[in-house]
Amino acid sequence: MSSNVKISEDNSATFTGWASTGTAELKKFSYHPRPLGPKDVELEISHCGICGSDVHTITSGWGELRLGPCIPGHEIIGKVVAKGEHSHHNIGDLVGVGAQVDSCGECNECKVGGDQYCSHKAFTYNDTYKDGRGGLTYGGYADRVRVNSDFAFKIPDQISAAEAAPLLCAGVTTYAPLKHHGAGPGKKVGVIGIGGLGHLGIQWARALNCDEVVAISTSDNKREEAAKLGATKFVNSKKPEDMKAAAASMDIILCTSFALDTNWGEILSLVANHGKLVLLALPEKPLSIPGGALISRQVSIVGSLIGGKIDVAEMLRFAAEKNVRPLIEKMPMSDANAAVKHMMEGRPRYRIVMETEAASRL
Amino acid sequence: MSSNVKISEDNSATFTGWASTGTAELKKFSYHPRPLGPKDVELEISHCGICGSDVHTITSGWGELRLGPCIPGHEIIGKVVAKGEHSHHNIGDLVGVGAQVDSCGECNECKVGGDQYCSHKAFTYNDTYKDGRGGLTYGGYADRVRVNSDFAFKIPDQISAAEAAPLLCAGVTTYAPLKHHGAGPGKKVGVIGIGGLGHLGIQWARALNCDEVVAISTSDNKREEAAKLGATKFVNSKKPEDMKAAAASMDIILCTSFALDTNWGEILSLVANHGKLVLLALPEKPLSIPGGALISRQVSIVGSLIGGKIDVAEMLRFAAEKNVRPLIEKMPMSDANAAVKHMMEGRPRYRIVMETEAASRL
Repeated sequence: MSSNVKISEDNSATFTGWASTGTAELKKFSYHPRPLGPKDVELEISHCGICGSDVHTITSGWGELRLGPCIPGHEIIGKVVAKGEHSHHNIGDLVGVGAQVDSCGECNECKVGGDQYCSHKAFTYNDTYKDGRGGLTYGGYADRVRVNSDFAFKIPDQISAAEAAPLLCAGVTTYAPLKHHGAGPGKKVGVIGIGGLGHLGIQWARALNCDEVVAISTSDNKREEAAKLGATKFVNSKKPEDMKAAAASMDIILCTSFALDTNWGEILSLVANHGKLVLLALPEKPLSIPGGALISRQVSIVGSLIGGKIDVAEMLRFAAEKNVRPLIEKMPMSDANAAVKHMMEGRPRYRIVMETEAASRL
Repeated sequence: MSSNVKISEDNSATFTGWASTGTAELKKFSYHPRPLGPKDVELEISHCGICGSDVHTITSGWGELRLGPCIPGHEIIGKVVAKGEHSHHNIGDLVGVGAQVDSCGECNECKVGGDQYCSHKAFTYNDTYKDGRGGLTYGGYADRVRVNSDFAFKIPDQISAAEAAPLLCAGVTTYAPLKHHGAGPGKKVGVIGIGGLGHLGIQWARALNCDEVVAISTSDNKREEAAKLGATKFVNSKKPEDMKAAAASMDIILCTSFALDTNWGEILSLVANHGKLVLLALPEKPLSIPGGALISRQVSIVGSLIGGKIDVAEMLRFAAEKNVRPLIEKMPMSDANAAVKHMMEGRPRYRIVMETEAASRL
């Protein structure tokens, strides 16, 4: 165990996790969490998914870490082991925490369920609290975490703890924009990238009864798997004949994946007149967008950031009801570096979920 | 008069105008128009505005001319001098023609007023008809033009012929997206570029009773003029303090102007959460868009192409009622090259309208 202890406020508690200091190699790191506030819960973490955001962050792809050692992880599942007097949860509840752990609760965004667009929000890691109590946020590659209970969600009984983890970020990130932009009967939906996000996007679109669910990939490798997930069509974006046949056919396309050489004009050619390309994943470089692709058919590019509290709760109910589950590979959190390496190299099918010792006690 | 006569179908008629052959210098050019169809009208042109599109086209900024000599001009005003039996207009009517002269009339776009997104549309110049009768389209830098009367709009008595011309393209191009995206009370609208399009966009936004109308320019030169047009605020996009004060404040921004070095991230920083940057003018190069600017606040970039027939008719009524008029400089069409040069160099305030001899006979 490292003796590198971050002094925060509650010197009586020490949480330990795997932290990046700006390189891809994670090291054991301990910190004193903020004191348990009246609305907070403390979780004993049993599972944490590995998100692409974690990799962008620990490899500094989105820029240097500003806040010292960073414990990543924002697909967190754990049992409530301590609670403030105004917390929504009970000791022993199994809850999940996604990419956000705080917001002001009072602004125009928070009032209408747009918590993730609150200017006083705190992301789950590598961020600062703006609630006046100070402190940094640390994520779920750890034994414990304390968060505002508004951002801890009860996991439905039908969903296993391990499978629930990826729903908290990958799940709501793909569910919320489909709902917001009206995916459902009468709509044709495309999903670019059949990975951690995309394999859930395909399932949501199917469960929402969209007229078509088109899986879009840069190779034919996942053609069969896409069909099993619920895709009704498959477009290999490297095949001109596939692209031509699918031209201007999709009302909503979720973009969960891209490369440095992604041809955005070709991608936009798939969007139907008046349709939307929804950008969910944050590219590390600017996109090169040909204006004509937007103007000639009134096409939009719009961004979407995770989902708000209402979206998460609705998504969890919908997943339970419609049997939408991530496909996961479990790895022990004690091998966090191996798990991240597998994520970076191995293209897991489709989400890695790390387990702690606490998983055996659920 | 050039003897360069394009053989089309109606050898009994010869129309003459100013054509580009791929260089900025226009030359006299004559062509035989398509025979007058049952729905067509023939106009004696009195006025034609000069649009930025004309310049992009004749300088090949949007690519080489594909169709031989091109007579530009799509802000056309003229009197009906001949009509087919099913034309909507009467001989002597003063009508205007914008950037589109045909569509199929039957597709899902045409049925809901989206004529400009019909895949069988014909633009007013440098285009081909797809209606089975064949032929190329020639624009309004000419003595006459024949078009489908569905795309010729009666000019309200309150609007002078010369002032009506720019409404047919610049007018509807700025009006239609404001209506489509819900500009009105409760909304704050920005207009980037105080020029041929922008000076109308500001007037529309004011006439639509938007809460704020923000003129956005790269210098302070037009600050006073913007206020006279109806702007309630002014942002000099080169001044960091102006940009900071206006951050995330506008629900809809019409982008009518840009430069090769436009910083799209800075522009997007002005759009309110969930707001839209509407691209009206087609850049000759791709836009470099930082994805984070879209994702972090659910911002959209959306294109908009001119307006449909319903939009044009509504816009003309609204202009008459609300006294929205372009500010124009008149020049004789016999000096078309000088007029285009003035457009390219002189930044007219705000729209050049060329007059023919027929103007004196109105």
